[in-house]
Amino acid sequence: SETASRTDRTIDLAVIPGDGIGPEVVAQGLKVLTAVLPQDVKLETREYDLGAKRWHATGETLTDEELERLKAHNAILLGAVGDPGVPSGVLERGLLLKLRFAFDHFVNLRPSKLFPNVTSPLAGRPEIDFVVVREGTEGPYVGNGGTIRKGTPHEVANEVSVNTAFGVERVVRDAYARAQARPRKKLTLVHKNNVLVHAGHLWKDTFDRVGREFPEVTTDYLHVDAATIFLTTDPARFDVIVTDNLFGDIITDLAAAVSGGIGLAASGNINPTREFPSMFEPVHGSAPDIAGTGKADPTATVLSVALLLRHLGYEDEADRIDAAVTADLTERGAGAARSTDEIGDALAARVSG
Amino acid sequence: SETASRTDRTIDLAVIPGDGIGPEVVAQGLKVLTAVLPQDVKLETREYDLGAKRWHATGETLTDEELERLKAHNAILLGAVGDPGVPSGVLERGLLLKLRFAFDHFVNLRPSKLFPNVTSPLAGRPEIDFVVVREGTEGPYVGNGGTIRKGTPHEVANEVSVNTAFGVERVVRDAYARAQARPRKKLTLVHKNNVLVHAGHLWKDTFDRVGREFPEVTTDYLHVDAATIFLTTDPARFDVIVTDNLFGDIITDLAAAVSGGIGLAASGNINPTREFPSMFEPVHGSAPDIAGTGKADPTATVLSVALLLRHLGYEDEADRIDAAVTADLTERGAGAARSTDEIGDALAARVSG
Ligand SMILES: CC(C)[C@H](C(=O)O)[C@@H](O)C(=O)O
Ligand SMILES: CC(C)[C@H](C(=O)O)[C@@H](O)C(=O)O
Repeated sequence: SETASRTDRTIDLAVIPGDGIGPEVVAQGLKVLTAVLPQDVKLETREYDLGAKRWHATGETLTDEELERLKAHNAILLGAVGDPGVPSGVLERGLLLKLRFAFDHFVNLRPSKLFPNVTSPLAGRPEIDFVVVREGTEGPYVGNGGTIRKGTPHEVANEVSVNTAFGVERVVRDAYARAQARPRKKLTLVHKNNVLVHAGHLWKDTFDRVGREFPEVTTDYLHVDAATIFLTTDPARFDVIVTDNLFGDIITDLAAAVSGGIGLAASGNINPTREFPSMFEPVHGSAPDIAGTGKADPTATVLSVALLLRHLGYEDEADRIDAAVTADLTERGAGAARSTDEIGDALAARVSG
Repeated sequence: SETASRTDRTIDLAVIPGDGIGPEVVAQGLKVLTAVLPQDVKLETREYDLGAKRWHATGETLTDEELERLKAHNAILLGAVGDPGVPSGVLERGLLLKLRFAFDHFVNLRPSKLFPNVTSPLAGRPEIDFVVVREGTEGPYVGNGGTIRKGTPHEVANEVSVNTAFGVERVVRDAYARAQARPRKKLTLVHKNNVLVHAGHLWKDTFDRVGREFPEVTTDYLHVDAATIFLTTDPARFDVIVTDNLFGDIITDLAAAVSGGIGLAASGNINPTREFPSMFEPVHGSAPDIAGTGKADPTATVLSVALLLRHLGYEDEADRIDAAVTADLTERGAGAARSTDEIGDALAARVSG
């Protein structure tokens, strides 16, 4: 389903380096991307100056013109945006979520894997190799809601989670297809249908109904609270997880933590219909405290480039990046910590080798 | 603030043993309660037959008469309710949440502590000793919302999170007071104010404003996704956490997991105004798979009894239970696993000794 037309052999990529360590890790992602692509594939990139710096300078988060121009690219690579000077919500609503919603990124794909030599906070190094399919365009993220009597003792602030049959079914179907394509063929729905009964009923009902079309896939349901327990005590039980936008936000950070930290967590905001460009980004933020020190680990961005390639149909190239990361982590000794650039160089050398 | 009037020296306790292991752990909780109370305190208990068995037999979850009768008690001790035959949501909405809402249990208190000799899934046994103050009467738990076009491809299911200045302020104030009373005096607000901007603004604004009345308390804010990372990688950073109903549900299960499992996690659904009885229960469920085997660990229920005593003003007795649990876990050898009853006996012996 993700095999794109490769007729023209050009990747027209929008690049949003962003703030803090964003530009540093994106540079390494592009280095590895350039190294892995066959000679006959032309890579065109165009940089977009978006994020905190831009907002401080102009007050703009993303103009309609920029949104329109971004639409024409094959995909978007984003580093990280934000700094402590931007009020909470401004870049989230005005840029990140705006892109996810405008480009209908209904599959937010977040793989978790415990790589060799990576330190997990969990005792005994469990096997961790699962992927979360987080819904990306609905739920409590829609921005529905509001406040009355703001700032008074009678303030009421509401947030509305909106869930549609259309929106739930397409992401559940995508998750089943991904589970079907994996060796273990297991899919877990995570929700809280004992309390959020309306949304929960829609999710569970859709999950059960679509499941009848995938008889080979083993299914399982967990409340989100119980899911956090199993992610900590038995992450090996998970293969593919499908869940709503907010629960997905929460459990993927936890998943990243137990598999060694967000320095390695990649993500794709995917529009599987290809009507709009998909966007790939590391899960980590802009980490202003280490920006410019060369300490940022670009691996999450490089793994996000692999997701990007897979989405565009470059399966072999994506496999080579994944293998390079595994080899790199396996073979690194107890030597000195490597800089952002050195890790990028090492990965680029491996994929072109 | 929790020092009750002890003039009449009677505890009139409602007991809801419930289903599965519920009655087994409640029996031990009552055993320890009886053992710890001074001779001049009269303990009166009345059992309420509520839960899955009752629902299967009568179709009732909680009648208005029962609710009225429960209201007259000093406190409620609940074991666990539910079995796989009850549709999801029936006992939650009809019994557990009904009690929390009817009795205005706006402070859902959930301490987490890594006791001696308890196995944490985290490597290196971090120091864990914090308490979550979870809001209990608002947020996405209010049951607001609904479905249109149910069962059709055009279904829309909404869930509304309702947050009021009144509701947020009283729980935030309670959390500050608890932080103020602890040696570290640190309070962390957990929310997601970069996405849930309406509710997030109310929470953060209230948190900052009330904080000015507690200048000794150090404060901190974390998004809920980031909080799951720190709960796994650095739980020692937490002292008191205040958060909304749903985030509290999620992070307290995670907190229980990292501190050795829900077999030890106690909770109080507290109405600090004492207008209505507060309810104390282990965080774990009815575990039908081990019911009747003597394998259930009653410690979470016994620790919930300590919370109950503290709420009723029996601080010394509560301290003795906490100390007994610590001593019991410290001194238990690598011997054979103990039964539910044996653990209850051991704890009862310690508190009366
Ligand atoms: C920055 C924020 C809007 C975002 C989210 O909540 O989705 C982030 O936490 C993520 O997971 O990508
Ligand atoms: C059973 C359920 C309604 C409840 C909740 O979600 O609050 C439980 O998970 C808890 O944490 O006490």
